[in-house]
Amino acid sequence: MGNSVKKQVTDTSSGEREKTKDALLRVAIAAIEEVGESHVRLDDVLRDADASVSSLYHHYGNMRGLLDEAQLARFDSFTGHNIKTFHDAVLRVRNKDEFRELIDATVKDLFSRSRRENRATIMNAFGSIFTTPQYDERIVALERQNMEVLSAAIEHARSQGMTRSDLDVMSFSAWAMGLTFSRVIPDILNDEDIIDGWIEMTTQSVHHLLGL
Amino acid sequence: MGNSVKKQVTDTSSGEREKTKDALLRVAIAAIEEVGESHVRLDDVLRDADASVSSLYHHYGNMRGLLDEAQLARFDSFTGHNIKTFHDAVLRVRNKDEFRELIDATVKDLFSRSRRENRATIMNAFGSIFTTPQYDERIVALERQNMEVLSAAIEHARSQGMTRSDLDVMSFSAWAMGLTFSRVIPDILNDEDIIDGWIEMTTQSVHHLLGL
Repeated sequence: MGNSVKKQVTDTSSGEREKTKDALLRVAIAAIEEVGESHVRLDDVLRDADASVSSLYHHYGNMRGLLDEAQLARFDSFTGHNIKTFHDAVLRVRNKDEFRELIDATVKDLFSRSRRENRATIMNAFGSIFTTPQYDERIVALERQNMEVLSAAIEHARSQGMTRSDLDVMSFSAWAMGLTFSRVIPDILNDEDIIDGWIEMTTQSVHHLLGL
Repeated sequence: MGNSVKKQVTDTSSGEREKTKDALLRVAIAAIEEVGESHVRLDDVLRDADASVSSLYHHYGNMRGLLDEAQLARFDSFTGHNIKTFHDAVLRVRNKDEFRELIDATVKDLFSRSRRENRATIMNAFGSIFTTPQYDERIVALERQNMEVLSAAIEHARSQGMTRSDLDVMSFSAWAMGLTFSRVIPDILNDEDIIDGWIEMTTQSVHHLLGL
């Protein structure tokens, strides 16, 4: 079957197929975010993506494959984007005071109440693919990329004398990346004092570890 | 239907039904841990639990209800158990040095490489129920219980002068509970130096926040 499909491919149909592949992914992401992964229905996804069941199997193997891919995309769009933004901001910082201000603003923004849904998203995405070996590898690759960007930012600050000079940049970066997951605890406890207290604990720890 | 079932209940059949309910949960937990939630099959669960599909619907509403309940149980058995163990150990501590030793040993044990599977379990369990409103409430209740036990331990240490006197016990407890989730980052990066570095960062932060 793979052969006969390949023979029919022209530039146009190849473009169409890419569109169907993207549409399936986009619709699956939207469906997960609307009703939760376990309630996403195959028929609804196919209808909204204007796709056939055979094109779903062709591009993603099966429904599970599509859902895993959608979860990975959800995870990446949140974490990767925030780390790049922080990285670019660090490069613009001119001294230790400005670096400390950036750190405090980032902690307040990244761990704010308004990002609760984003955290639920990545927790859900991460949780559901964590036990799927082939996606584990993809997540590792994504997280290594994110770590490299974050480490580059922290290493820049260190080399400019804005952190303690003996900072273990890689370990700090991995430690800091984990905080998004930690923050889910005050999210679910949903207690104003605990949320403020958690942000205070995090700010104090980060200052201490960076030597700010 | 509910009525006719109720009329037949005797002490014996009520006991049988409890056994079926427990068996379904036990089998579902084992199946999730063996093949991953998304690959658990209804037929296999019913066969291994020696249960009928109507008893599954009676006790758990549907397969989704059973899986959510199983995930909740998996989550609780890990977190609740560790916090109780720590609590009991704190009550036996006699001075600040012993408290610091207990903290360091707990960090090393709880975040050791060998607990990787446990962390994957709770991440997976937490992730999959985080977006299900009725289970969100159950998780909140469980986490509040866990927080109360952990806070009681930390408050005991504080009242004995083994931590800084102005410690925000509740916020610290919520912050510390989140670390299990954070630790998943070095798990997936799977780099020996980063794992050691993460534990060092955590130990330093905890010492700093507790005033050890």
